[in-house]
Amino acid sequence: MGFGVPLNQDHRADLRQRFRAVRARSLAIAAPLSAEDMGAQAMEDASPAKWHLAHTTWFFAEFVLAGRVATGAPSAWRYLFNSYYEAIGPRIARPSRGLITRPPVAEVLDWRRRIDDALDDLLDQAGGAAFAELAPLVELGLNHEEQHQELMLTDILALFAAHPDTPTYRDDLAPLSEDKRSDRQWLSRQGGLTETGAEASGFAFDCERPRHRVWLEPFALADRLVTNAEWLEFIEDGGYANPLLWLSEGWACVKREGWSAPGYWRFVDDAWRQVTLAGLAPLTPAAPVSHVSYWEADAYARWAGARLPREAEWEAVAAAESVRGNLLGADRLRPTPRGETAQFFGDVWEWTQSAFSPYPGFRPAQGAFGEYNGKFMAAQFVLRGGSCLTPEAHIRASYRNFFYPQQRWQMMGLRLAKDLS
Amino acid sequence: MGFGVPLNQDHRADLRQRFRAVRARSLAIAAPLSAEDMGAQAMEDASPAKWHLAHTTWFFAEFVLAGRVATGAPSAWRYLFNSYYEAIGPRIARPSRGLITRPPVAEVLDWRRRIDDALDDLLDQAGGAAFAELAPLVELGLNHEEQHQELMLTDILALFAAHPDTPTYRDDLAPLSEDKRSDRQWLSRQGGLTETGAEASGFAFDCERPRHRVWLEPFALADRLVTNAEWLEFIEDGGYANPLLWLSEGWACVKREGWSAPGYWRFVDDAWRQVTLAGLAPLTPAAPVSHVSYWEADAYARWAGARLPREAEWEAVAAAESVRGNLLGADRLRPTPRGETAQFFGDVWEWTQSAFSPYPGFRPAQGAFGEYNGKFMAAQFVLRGGSCLTPEAHIRASYRNFFYPQQRWQMMGLRLAKDLS
Amino acid sequence: MGFGVPLNQDHRADLRQRFRAVRARSLAIAAPLSAEDMGAQAMEDASPAKWHLAHTTWFFAEFVLAGRVATGAPSAWRYLFNSYYEAIGPRIARPSRGLITRPPVAEVLDWRRRIDDALDDLLDQAGGAAFAELAPLVELGLNHEEQHQELMLTDILALFAAHPDTPTYRDDLAPLSEDKRSDRQWLSRQGGLTETGAEASGFAFDCERPRHRVWLEPFALADRLVTNAEWLEFIEDGGYANPLLWLSEGWACVKREGWSAPGYWRFVDDAWRQVTLAGLAPLTPAAPVSHVSYWEADAYARWAGARLPREAEWEAVAAAESVRGNLLGADRLRPTPRGETAQFFGDVWEWTQSAFSPYPGFRPAQGAFGEYNGKFMAAQFVLRGGSCLTPEAHIRASYRNFFYPQQRWQMMGLRLAKDLS
Amino acid sequence: MGFGVPLNQDHRADLRQRFRAVRARSLAIAAPLSAEDMGAQAMEDASPAKWHLAHTTWFFAEFVLAGRVATGAPSAWRYLFNSYYEAIGPRIARPSRGLITRPPVAEVLDWRRRIDDALDDLLDQAGGAAFAELAPLVELGLNHEEQHQELMLTDILALFAAHPDTPTYRDDLAPLSEDKRSDRQWLSRQGGLTETGAEASGFAFDCERPRHRVWLEPFALADRLVTNAEWLEFIEDGGYANPLLWLSEGWACVKREGWSAPGYWRFVDDAWRQVTLAGLAPLTPAAPVSHVSYWEADAYARWAGARLPREAEWEAVAAAESVRGNLLGADRLRPTPRGETAQFFGDVWEWTQSAFSPYPGFRPAQGAFGEYNGKFMAAQFVLRGGSCLTPEAHIRASYRNFFYPQQRWQMMGLRLAKDLS
Repeated sequence: MGFGVPLNQDHRADLRQRFRAVRARSLAIAAPLSAEDMGAQAMEDASPAKWHLAHTTWFFAEFVLAGRVATGAPSAWRYLFNSYYEAIGPRIARPSRGLITRPPVAEVLDWRRRIDDALDDLLDQAGGAAFAELAPLVELGLNHEEQHQELMLTDILALFAAHPDTPTYRDDLAPLSEDKRSDRQWLSRQGGLTETGAEASGFAFDCERPRHRVWLEPFALADRLVTNAEWLEFIEDGGYANPLLWLSEGWACVKREGWSAPGYWRFVDDAWRQVTLAGLAPLTPAAPVSHVSYWEADAYARWAGARLPREAEWEAVAAAESVRGNLLGADRLRPTPRGETAQFFGDVWEWTQSAFSPYPGFRPAQGAFGEYNGKFMAAQFVLRGGSCLTPEAHIRASYRNFFYPQQRWQMMGLRLAKDLS
Repeated sequence: MGFGVPLNQDHRADLRQRFRAVRARSLAIAAPLSAEDMGAQAMEDASPAKWHLAHTTWFFAEFVLAGRVATGAPSAWRYLFNSYYEAIGPRIARPSRGLITRPPVAEVLDWRRRIDDALDDLLDQAGGAAFAELAPLVELGLNHEEQHQELMLTDILALFAAHPDTPTYRDDLAPLSEDKRSDRQWLSRQGGLTETGAEASGFAFDCERPRHRVWLEPFALADRLVTNAEWLEFIEDGGYANPLLWLSEGWACVKREGWSAPGYWRFVDDAWRQVTLAGLAPLTPAAPVSHVSYWEADAYARWAGARLPREAEWEAVAAAESVRGNLLGADRLRPTPRGETAQFFGDVWEWTQSAFSPYPGFRPAQGAFGEYNGKFMAAQFVLRGGSCLTPEAHIRASYRNFFYPQQRWQMMGLRLAKDLS
Repeated sequence: MGFGVPLNQDHRADLRQRFRAVRARSLAIAAPLSAEDMGAQAMEDASPAKWHLAHTTWFFAEFVLAGRVATGAPSAWRYLFNSYYEAIGPRIARPSRGLITRPPVAEVLDWRRRIDDALDDLLDQAGGAAFAELAPLVELGLNHEEQHQELMLTDILALFAAHPDTPTYRDDLAPLSEDKRSDRQWLSRQGGLTETGAEASGFAFDCERPRHRVWLEPFALADRLVTNAEWLEFIEDGGYANPLLWLSEGWACVKREGWSAPGYWRFVDDAWRQVTLAGLAPLTPAAPVSHVSYWEADAYARWAGARLPREAEWEAVAAAESVRGNLLGADRLRPTPRGETAQFFGDVWEWTQSAFSPYPGFRPAQGAFGEYNGKFMAAQFVLRGGSCLTPEAHIRASYRNFFYPQQRWQMMGLRLAKDLS
Repeated sequence: MGFGVPLNQDHRADLRQRFRAVRARSLAIAAPLSAEDMGAQAMEDASPAKWHLAHTTWFFAEFVLAGRVATGAPSAWRYLFNSYYEAIGPRIARPSRGLITRPPVAEVLDWRRRIDDALDDLLDQAGGAAFAELAPLVELGLNHEEQHQELMLTDILALFAAHPDTPTYRDDLAPLSEDKRSDRQWLSRQGGLTETGAEASGFAFDCERPRHRVWLEPFALADRLVTNAEWLEFIEDGGYANPLLWLSEGWACVKREGWSAPGYWRFVDDAWRQVTLAGLAPLTPAAPVSHVSYWEADAYARWAGARLPREAEWEAVAAAESVRGNLLGADRLRPTPRGETAQFFGDVWEWTQSAFSPYPGFRPAQGAFGEYNGKFMAAQFVLRGGSCLTPEAHIRASYRNFFYPQQRWQMMGLRLAKDLS
């Protein structure tokens, strides 16, 4: 399988508990939405919430239950809810996911229940050998579903941001903490020969392995993320109008898209505001900037006399931190100003300057799983650390997220880095 | 106003009755749809059913009630449900109509009820002068809504045709009449100086007036529409592969789109089938061909040694026929083989070779109504006669519909014509 | 053939003389150009001058000499210099005409000489019957070449206008006549039943025939073209920023292209200037506006409370005028202020509101000639009257030129019209 | 300056000699071309030969002579012949370089002579300090010109390949050596901590520095390039039709472009042939495959059970080889079968799997030179080793070329690699 060491079968109860919890969280995320909200596709990059709910179920049906238990769905659903697995077969064109008005939400939810029951029975009754085979598949399915939980939230934000009224997804979110600005300090490291990537045991995606050695020159990372207030300085200094700050493609992108601020920023009544999952809100100056593309992150870093971190640098520092921060469990759903931690985990994904390439010795999994990450290893950039929309159990120091440099609808920001030599 | 002579106020009861009937029909058309079905936009040319229901209501609120009665809708709805009236103000980009998940269907339906009640009260209580002012506005609104009833149906068809399962909109439609092939006869006319366009009295759209003289050379029209069986011969003779049959732009379009058959035709299990509002069905050979573009209609006519009619020719013959045929009231929702009539009304809209140009003496209405038709008078072609989706009360011999030559999602077909001189 | 009654063979000397003169004029037009100038293609709509010289020669080789005399060109040239004749065979993609660096200009010119000699011999020695067959083909080839002479000039203008230095094509052109503004008068006509189109005798293109009757309502045409000074008023009145003046597609085009003035206008040093074949020059206020699209012409007419003429109206008036004016023979190569004539011929082609449709009874010629005009009869608009770049012998009252409504690199302008009823 | 340690002024004679030689070689490359050939732009990625001759001269005028000696060119030339230097000012849009028919080739050549004379005088007469300042600028200009010499050749090939006759650039090229197939052997390396990048002394581009440590896991590289014969096996095995072999973007590219073979391959008379600078020629089976994109190279490697090299792996092996091979001086202008060397230098540029990223400690040069490489450091991939079109003096083991993964008009091929651990 390649994604992790199988859980010991003593963990049967834990896995069943985790399965129920993860599946329930997807429903909780969809709860504030109407059937209409759940059917619409904000743009080609995004998917409808209903599709996410169905696709994550398809994943269990296709990769865990198939061949073991009947999944009870019409065969056409294999076509509708496959994302990109060529090995499984053809699928609906991505931009047409918003046209799947049938099956209705109710049928998708009913299917979820049936699959959940079937899987729970299977986990309950499987013999030891069968369980040992099942457990890593289920764990992969849960990690896959956690990824889609974040996507559901960013895609809802994209949908509501496209609406002239910018509807509010949740009006019961706690207000952001009082605004404390903090000076940026540098966390210096001497580098040298270090190990990077996931350990051989425990769950990790294929692209995080194998753990391998890498040589780092002396470097420093900022002890917090770049803030909205700092980004405003960049704007006011003409950052979006100065080609010398930008990579060549980035500059072409800025002109083509007409960008003059991060995504979801709106200049209303003489002030910048931001579309959030709590509706249109004033900027929080000390909160991390979000919804910036790689092009913007890179230009900002150049303007600031710094650079983006390499992924191995980031991991070398973050691996020593405990995984806590403003993650999904905090239920803020917006980046918050720096508190006690150095914001390595949560708030916003951090662009690195590293292209998404295979690690030395990488071998994709056999079969359809080989398409999970491997076929995207080109022309995308790695982001690290998770965001305020990432489930706690999902993130770790070795985690490699990746997006195209022009994308910015995810919860994306940056941390500065510099060379010490 | 320019669209018609005001109804006499004695017609108050009739108008109130017609108002209720037309408004009720829109709801009846939407009845088989779920909220999800009603929110999706099949493609840029099409609109969601919910949007049609809201936009037709917006039309009454904006053009009839505004300034007379409060309309009770949030001001943002003016932005969401305006179609193309620059004089009214900005509006949501057309391709984004599928993103309007708020307001939900229920609120739109509730708004419809409030507007209906307000308008009914107004029609009931208006004094004579006020009624005389109101009546033509209401009549325009009803004709506008009838147009959108046809669009709702064609847009639902487009949505379901984009779905791999091709859902059935109505499974209670009567089967098509037994298949009777009829030889084509020619209806010959001597031409000469004739009048064309709508009479000054009675409702008509601005573009149908003024009635004016036109000189016609001797010509003949076929006494029925071109059929599916005939179209198959065109396909089998290589019609889609022979550039010499096509207009230059038409040939470019065929290659670009990869067309080899009319819209919604599917070659399944060794036979051509057709996506209809009754689901995927075998072709009815003697039924009129539908969903062909102007480019295809023109190429077919050339292949058949004939040509498309001019609109004045068509009108000269059709004006002598009574307005009956396979229209919406027949509830077939698919074109049917020729029966007693010569199919001038109903079944499919008939492409003419006439560009949509202003009639001599045409003056667009003042104000926003001037945008109703006038601003589209270029590079589109006139279609005549209505279709199986057109309300009976809506169609007449002088009616000019118009679409771009590459469009084919409407219920469009053709009738052959030829010169006699 | 369909393009004209064959010239009487007594006209043999005349035809040989005309042949030599027309062919020589093409060379004279190219004379100020370097080989490099002659090879470049300004944009997809335009062609290199070398290609025009070769294509007009190909036309004689393919349609006159082939089967009679060996043409002495490599077979690949049939591919390179065919324009759009599907019946002849495949051809180089239009946007790649600028890549034909081989054969060099010298070889093309040499081929022209050989073809000219062969054709001259043929015309000299053909017997009576053979001459009667040849003469109309040659006449068509000469009219074809005259069309390309105008295109050569407009395409050179497009090329030089794309160059930051705006090179001067001819620096020996006479300055424009002193600027005399003339008030616009209306030429009123009562309309009625009138004949339009080319007489059966004499050369004309297929699309000008058959001559047929048409009914005209009373109308009036301006007695001169719209001027640069008048266009400036339109600009200064916000014409390019007011959507209510524009056809729907026209408004989309203006926004997409960012147009705020006619083609080739440049705002330099606080004044509008114009790129002309005499280089960058100040606007001549009383000269006709040129390089405006149909969309602009239509919007201007609406702004002026008028409309564009119908082509039959234009022809009814122009047919009574003699064919004289600022045509190519005047060697001004720029539109000039109105003098004695009403500018029906020369200066700029005049947009009409008429789509380019077949006349009643139109039948395209057999064979490849059927592609000459017929396959373009859709979605283009007719222009009348010729321009300052049109050879005198080429133009007549029945002449129908046609372009897409967004095109404006030709010498295009407008004359106002209005209804009298 | 950042590009290299200044040459000692004792090297004055050497530098003058090298200057004359490099400049002369550009003219020699252009010698077989007509003025028309030199003006045409094959596609947006390519430039006309005349533009290359002018731009390389502009480089000396702008970066070496400006402020020291008058350059004698019209100021508009700064606009025409600037490539992408935002710091210098605006410039003609890249796709319009084929429209620069003025100045003519003769004037560009004359300008070259004047600049050459001025520079030669300057090098001759500069005092010691001035020479020390000049020398590295001149060296950069010469390296820049060598890059454009290769581009001239690949752009001419692109132009001639777009011509239906595929003209021959040079008909005096020696035939390719007899075809000796060689088995592939693996060159194994143990990896470990190694240094990569250019030494601090000697000329190198900014992106090759600083030299730094990198850790390599055990790996092996093939001892020769992938051949045409091997590529044919890939084609015959359905390589271009199997999505599982391709990166996701690569597969989309293959379908969009309709690729089924390398660039410039033509299937004629039942056999694959290749457009070369010696004209259309049969494939040489044992010669290295060329004109393959990164997407294709990566898919091939996966199909072959191998991978592409990392750039540090490549450099670690190549640095031990001497720089010799089928480079420009060999005057073959086509890749040749493996001889004595392992083909690290010459024949074709070798795609690596490494994105073009800055080295640790990289700092772009100050001023306009900072745009030389730095602003392209994203979403492109590194190629190594030079090609049969690369001047000998130009290439070295640390040299990093870079292109987008979909580009293939350069002389690009691949060498296989594999992990040993």
